[in-house]
Amino acid sequence: MRLLVVNPNTTASMTEKIGAAARAVAGASTEVLAVSPADGPVSIEGYVDEAFSVPGLLAEIRKHPADAYIVACFDDTGLDAARCVTDAPVIGIGEAAFHLASLLAGKFSVVTTLSRSIPAIEHNLLKYGLDRRCARVRAAEVPVLDLEDPESDAAGRIAAEIERAKAEDRCEAIVLGCAGMADLAAALSARHGLPVVDGVAAAVKLAESLVALGLKTSKLGGYAAPRAKRYDGRFRDDAP
Amino acid sequence: MRLLVVNPNTTASMTEKIGAAARAVAGASTEVLAVSPADGPVSIEGYVDEAFSVPGLLAEIRKHPADAYIVACFDDTGLDAARCVTDAPVIGIGEAAFHLASLLAGKFSVVTTLSRSIPAIEHNLLKYGLDRRCARVRAAEVPVLDLEDPESDAAGRIAAEIERAKAEDRCEAIVLGCAGMADLAAALSARHGLPVVDGVAAAVKLAESLVALGLKTSKLGGYAAPRAKRYDGRFRDDAP
Amino acid sequence: MRLLVVNPNTTASMTEKIGAAARAVAGASTEVLAVSPADGPVSIEGYVDEAFSVPGLLAEIRKHPADAYIVACFDDTGLDAARCVTDAPVIGIGEAAFHLASLLAGKFSVVTTLSRSIPAIEHNLLKYGLDRRCARVRAAEVPVLDLEDPESDAAGRIAAEIERAKAEDRCEAIVLGCAGMADLAAALSARHGLPVVDGVAAAVKLAESLVALGLKTSKLGGYAAPRAKRYDGRFRDDAP
Amino acid sequence: MRLLVVNPNTTASMTEKIGAAARAVAGASTEVLAVSPADGPVSIEGYVDEAFSVPGLLAEIRKHPADAYIVACFDDTGLDAARCVTDAPVIGIGEAAFHLASLLAGKFSVVTTLSRSIPAIEHNLLKYGLDRRCARVRAAEVPVLDLEDPESDAAGRIAAEIERAKAEDRCEAIVLGCAGMADLAAALSARHGLPVVDGVAAAVKLAESLVALGLKTSKLGGYAAPRAKRYDGRFRDDAP
Amino acid sequence: MRLLVVNPNTTASMTEKIGAAARAVAGASTEVLAVSPADGPVSIEGYVDEAFSVPGLLAEIRKHPADAYIVACFDDTGLDAARCVTDAPVIGIGEAAFHLASLLAGKFSVVTTLSRSIPAIEHNLLKYGLDRRCARVRAAEVPVLDLEDPESDAAGRIAAEIERAKAEDRCEAIVLGCAGMADLAAALSARHGLPVVDGVAAAVKLAESLVALGLKTSKLGGYAAPRAKRYDGRFRDDAP
Amino acid sequence: MRLLVVNPNTTASMTEKIGAAARAVAGASTEVLAVSPADGPVSIEGYVDEAFSVPGLLAEIRKHPADAYIVACFDDTGLDAARCVTDAPVIGIGEAAFHLASLLAGKFSVVTTLSRSIPAIEHNLLKYGLDRRCARVRAAEVPVLDLEDPESDAAGRIAAEIERAKAEDRCEAIVLGCAGMADLAAALSARHGLPVVDGVAAAVKLAESLVALGLKTSKLGGYAAPRAKRYDGRFRDDAP
Repeated sequence: MRLLVVNPNTTASMTEKIGAAARAVAGASTEVLAVSPADGPVSIEGYVDEAFSVPGLLAEIRKHPADAYIVACFDDTGLDAARCVTDAPVIGIGEAAFHLASLLAGKFSVVTTLSRSIPAIEHNLLKYGLDRRCARVRAAEVPVLDLEDPESDAAGRIAAEIERAKAEDRCEAIVLGCAGMADLAAALSARHGLPVVDGVAAAVKLAESLVALGLKTSKLGGYAAPRAKRYDGRFRDDAP
Repeated sequence: MRLLVVNPNTTASMTEKIGAAARAVAGASTEVLAVSPADGPVSIEGYVDEAFSVPGLLAEIRKHPADAYIVACFDDTGLDAARCVTDAPVIGIGEAAFHLASLLAGKFSVVTTLSRSIPAIEHNLLKYGLDRRCARVRAAEVPVLDLEDPESDAAGRIAAEIERAKAEDRCEAIVLGCAGMADLAAALSARHGLPVVDGVAAAVKLAESLVALGLKTSKLGGYAAPRAKRYDGRFRDDAP
Repeated sequence: MRLLVVNPNTTASMTEKIGAAARAVAGASTEVLAVSPADGPVSIEGYVDEAFSVPGLLAEIRKHPADAYIVACFDDTGLDAARCVTDAPVIGIGEAAFHLASLLAGKFSVVTTLSRSIPAIEHNLLKYGLDRRCARVRAAEVPVLDLEDPESDAAGRIAAEIERAKAEDRCEAIVLGCAGMADLAAALSARHGLPVVDGVAAAVKLAESLVALGLKTSKLGGYAAPRAKRYDGRFRDDAP
Repeated sequence: MRLLVVNPNTTASMTEKIGAAARAVAGASTEVLAVSPADGPVSIEGYVDEAFSVPGLLAEIRKHPADAYIVACFDDTGLDAARCVTDAPVIGIGEAAFHLASLLAGKFSVVTTLSRSIPAIEHNLLKYGLDRRCARVRAAEVPVLDLEDPESDAAGRIAAEIERAKAEDRCEAIVLGCAGMADLAAALSARHGLPVVDGVAAAVKLAESLVALGLKTSKLGGYAAPRAKRYDGRFRDDAP
Repeated sequence: MRLLVVNPNTTASMTEKIGAAARAVAGASTEVLAVSPADGPVSIEGYVDEAFSVPGLLAEIRKHPADAYIVACFDDTGLDAARCVTDAPVIGIGEAAFHLASLLAGKFSVVTTLSRSIPAIEHNLLKYGLDRRCARVRAAEVPVLDLEDPESDAAGRIAAEIERAKAEDRCEAIVLGCAGMADLAAALSARHGLPVVDGVAAAVKLAESLVALGLKTSKLGGYAAPRAKRYDGRFRDDAP
Repeated sequence: MRLLVVNPNTTASMTEKIGAAARAVAGASTEVLAVSPADGPVSIEGYVDEAFSVPGLLAEIRKHPADAYIVACFDDTGLDAARCVTDAPVIGIGEAAFHLASLLAGKFSVVTTLSRSIPAIEHNLLKYGLDRRCARVRAAEVPVLDLEDPESDAAGRIAAEIERAKAEDRCEAIVLGCAGMADLAAALSARHGLPVVDGVAAAVKLAESLVALGLKTSKLGGYAAPRAKRYDGRFRDDAP
C-alpha cells in the first residue's frame, strides 16, 4: 500500500524526521511518502498557522493518490476537510495517539510544545469524545522548531513535564503532543516507566489497519465529497 | 464605532444582504462595513469550503481596522484564528445566535441549509458548551445560494422544518443556521409563534455590547497573537 | 427603551451603585430604573436569602412595566420565575457575565464573595451549559455588605483571588461574582491584564440587544405565563 | 422518630393524601406529621408557584422540630434552602424517587402533570447527576388539582403516558412526577409490569434511613446555616 | 424481612464485622444473614480479584432465598449479574453510599484502600451518573486485610486522607471506600466534623426501604433473568 | 508475532469462525491462535453469562504466552482483569470496533444481538468515552447461537436493523455488536453503502499495531499486576 504522510508545515527537516519515524514502523509492504506543502508556515503554533497550512495540505492530498493519508500535525489541522477530498482513510496524528493510548491506560496526559496550543488540543479531545480519558494537556514550553535544534534543551523540558504529569495528574500513559517529538517516544517510555505514545507512529499503524480491513471514510455525513462550485481569486484552481 | 462584517464567501449579493441585515439592527453610532474576501468559495457548504475561506477572511480583518469584527458564516469559520489577529472582539454569527437564544428559551433547535453542515455545527455547540441547550440541529436541505434565488422554494422548506422542530424536538426557540437567512427571522417568528434568532443581527448587538463595555479578546491562552515566523509560497505575504 | 434593574436585596446603597453601573454603560435612549423590593434580606448570601428575595423581586417586575428586566444578583435569584411573569426579556447578571466572557476567552474563572455561594453558582453554570467554559468558581471570602464599606479590605481580597486564579486555573478571563463588585471591573482588568467581566454591565447590554432585536422570552415551555389560581395567606395578592 | 412532611401547596386534601401515603409506608416508630403552609399557591405548576411556596415551606420547617423533613412537591421546591434551616436531613420527593429508581433499573422515565414542569425537573436531574439515568421526562397533561378530582380522567392519562414511555423510551422503570399521584403507584406497577416509584413513599424511607444512621446534612458548603441578618418588609420575622 | 449480606471475599473476620455493622443498623424485623462464598480471593483489590469473586457471590445469592441482597464489596463487584439472578432488590455498598451521600452534601470525596481500586470506583460513579457529585476518589494506601489487623496504622492513614480531602477537594462529605471500614464511620464523622457514610449501613437501610415499598428490580432491560443455556466445565452446575 | 484470540464462550464453531476472521486480516508474520475456555457458558448474553466466562478467559490468557491478546466478545467481557494478568496488550473487540469507527465517521450506530445486551454496551461506551460518538445501540433480536445456524434469519434481521439505523439515527457507520457477526461485515458494507466495522478484524489490526510499536499496557493504575494472595475453593489454583 501507498501511504502519504503530509507534514502541514514547510520545514523540510521536520518532514524528513516525520518520514523516517513513519518508515521505522511501517509494514514491509507499505510505501511511505512524506511531503510538505509549498504554501504555508514553517511551523504550526496556534490557530493562525493552522489556517494557513490547510490549503497546502489539501493540495498535497489531491496531488498524491494513495491508499491512506496522515495529517502529521498534532492539532489534526485540516483533518475534517482532508476527509472530504478523498475516499481513502485519513488519520490525524493527534487522534491516532489518543485512541491508542486509550487501549493501554485508563487515563493519559498530553505533553505538547507551547501553552497556546492547549485549547486546540482540548477542543479536539472533546470532539473525539476522549476528553474523559485525558487527565491533563500540558505544555513543555518548547517552540516547535527547537525540536529540530540539537542544541536546544527541548528534550530536557519534555522529560521534566512528563515527571510533573506522573506526580500530579494520576495519568497512566503519556501522549507526545507534536510531530517533531516522534523520535523521542521509545527513550522516554523506557526512562519514565510508562507507555509514551507518538502520534506519527500511531497514525501509520492505524492507517495500515484501515487499509488492510478495506475500511474507508463514510461519505454519509460531514465527510461527503465537496459540492462542485466556483472558487475565486488565488484559490480559483483549488475548487472542487 | 466601526464594525467590520466579513462574509467569508465571495458572493456579493449575499454580502449585501448580510450588510443590510447588520445595518438594520446596528446602533446609530455604529458604522457597518460589510466585505467579502477576494479569495475563496462562492458559498460555504462543508469543511473544504470552510478551509479555503479562512485565509481571505483573515486578510479582510487585517486590512480593515475596526472596533469589532463579525464572521458572518454560521459555521463560525475561522473564528479562533480571527481572534488571534486582532485585539478587538470577534463574534461568530453561530455563537451569537446560540448565546442569545439561551437567554430566551430553555432549549432551541437549529435549522440550517444542508445536512452536511450538521456535524460542524454540532461540534461548535459542543465546544461552546451549549450543546445541552440545543434540542436538535436540523437541515432544510436548501443549498446556500438558493437563498439568493427568489424563485427557489427555500423559504417554504425552512418553514416546514421549523414546524417539524416544534412538533418533534420540544424546542422553545429556533436558531436560523445560515447568514443567508438573515432576512427571514422576523416573519418566521411571527408565523411560528416562538423566538427565531438570526445570527447576523445577534452578532451585531453582541459586538456593539463588547465594544461599549471596553471588553477585548483575552490574549492569555489560545487567542494570543500569532508568533512571528516565515510563511512560504503563496502565503508568503500572510505571515504574522 | 425602559430597563428595570432589580437589586433583589433591600440595601439601598447597593441599589444605587448597581443603578449607577447600569447607567454608565446604558445606551443614550435607555432609561434605567434601579429598584429593590420592600420585602426581603439586606444581602443575598446563600439559598435562604435567595428564597426570601424572590417574592419581592417578582412584585417589582409586575409593578414596573418595562421593555426588559435585569435580576441584579449574581446567583440569578428567581430568574426562571421572573421570565414567567412578563413577555419582555429578563436577564440575570450571572448568566450575562458567563455568556459575554465566553465570547472573549476559552475559559474563565469566577471570583465571588463567600464560599457558601459557590454551589449555587456551579449549579447555574451547569444549567446554562457553560460549566465546561468555567475553570473554577472561587470565593474571596468577602461578605456582600463589606463591598459597601470603604474601610473593608474587600478590594484587596478580590485582587488576591484573581491572582490565584491566574496562577492556578489556566483561566483567560475573570467574571466578578457579585453585583456589588460592579464598580471594580475596569480597574481590575487593567491591573491584572485580562478581561474582567461585571454582570451588571453585561446584562444591560444584553437586555438592550434583545430589545433592539425584538426578541422576547419563549412562552412555549417552562417560561409560560403562570396559570391563574388562588394564592393563600400573605401571598393572596400575589396570585397570577 | 418524628417526620415532618411538608406539602408546599395549600390544598388540604392533597396534604391529607400525602400524609396518608407517608403513613402507609412509615415504620412503626415513625410519627408522621403532614402539614402545608398558611401562605402560598393551591398547587405548584411552574416557577412562579414554586417561588411563592418556599417562604411558607421554610416557616413550617422552622415551626415543627423533627428528626427529618420531607419536601412533598416533585419539583423539590425550596429543597436547598430547607437544608440550610435545620441540621436534620431534608429529602425532596423528586430526588428520592430518582435515587430509588436508580437502584432498580438502568434507565427510568418520569411521568409528571403538565409540560411546563418538564424543564424544572430536567434541571433537577442535571443538578443531582442523574440525568444520565433518566430516559425522558414526560407530561400526562393533567393539572395537579385534577388528581384530587375523582371525576377527572387523570388516572387514564397517566396510564396512557406510561405505555408511551415503555414503547418509545426503552425505560425500565417509571417515576411518578407529582405528590398527588402517591396513591397510584402500586396499581400502575402491577398493571404495566415494571417498577413504578412514588416520591412520597421513597422520601419517607430515605428519611428514616438517614435518621437511623445518624446522618445529617453537611454544613460545610452551600447548606451552612444562614448568616444572621436583617430581613425587611413582610419577611421581617423570617430573618435567620 | 430476610436480608442476605454477601461479603464477596472469603475472609471470615471481615464477614463477621460486616454482619455486625449490618445488624447494628438493621430494623427490628430484619433478619440479617452475612455470608461469604466458598470460592474466591481472601480480599478484593483490583479487577482480577473481582472476577474470581463473582461466581461465588452469585452462588450465595441463589442458595439463600431472601427479601433483599447486599453485595458488600465497595467496588459493587458482580452487582449487575446479581440483579439478574433474583427478583428481589440487590444493593451494592458502593452505590448505597454514593446515593445517601448525595442527599446530605453537594459533593463528597471517597477514601478507599489502594490506588489500584480508584479506576474501578470512578467507572462505577460514571455508570451510576454520580461522578458529578464526587469531588475526588482517594486512596489511603491501606491493604484491605490491614483493616482486620488492630496493630496496623490503617485508621490513622484513613483519618489523614480525610483531612487532605477536606483541605483540597472542597468536599462536604466523605464516603468510606471499603466494607472493612464499616466500624469507623461514626467516630470519623465526629472527629472530622462532616458526614462520613459507610456503604454497609447505607445498603442495609436502602434494602429495607425497597422491600418496605414492595419495589423490585426491573426485568425489562439488562437485569432480565438469564437465558437458560448450557455451561461447561467447572461451571456446569452454575448454568441458569 | 503470536496473537491469542480468546472467544470467552465455549462454542467451538464460533471459536473457529472467529479464528478464521482473525486470520483473514492478520499480517503475514502474525500467528493467530484462537481458543475458548474449558469453563463457561456456550454463549454470552447478559451479565450472568459474562461473569461465568471471565475465570476461563483469564486462564486461557495465563496458559498461552503471546505478544498480544484479544477478548472476542463484544461486551469486552473481563477486559480490565485480562489487562492485569499480562504485560502484553489486550484488546476487546467492542472497543476495537468503536475506536476504528471513530476514525471513519462522525457518529456510528451499533447493531447487536439481543436487547438485554444493550445496557452493558452502553456502559462500555460511556467508560471508554466514546458514547458521544455513538448515535444508538440497537438489537436485531437475534440470539447469539442463531448466528451459527445457516437456517436462521439472522442475517436478514441484521440487515433490516442497519436500514433502520440509517433512516433514524443519522449514523454514518455501523459497528456489528457480536463476534459471531465477523463474517458479515464486508457484504453488509457493500449492501448498505457505509462502513460496517467488525470488532474481531479491528482488534487484530490494533493488536498488531501496538505490538509493532512496542506499546504495552500501563501498570501504573488499575491494570497493575494483581497482588499475590490466597484464593479459596475451586479458584485455589487461580490465585495470582
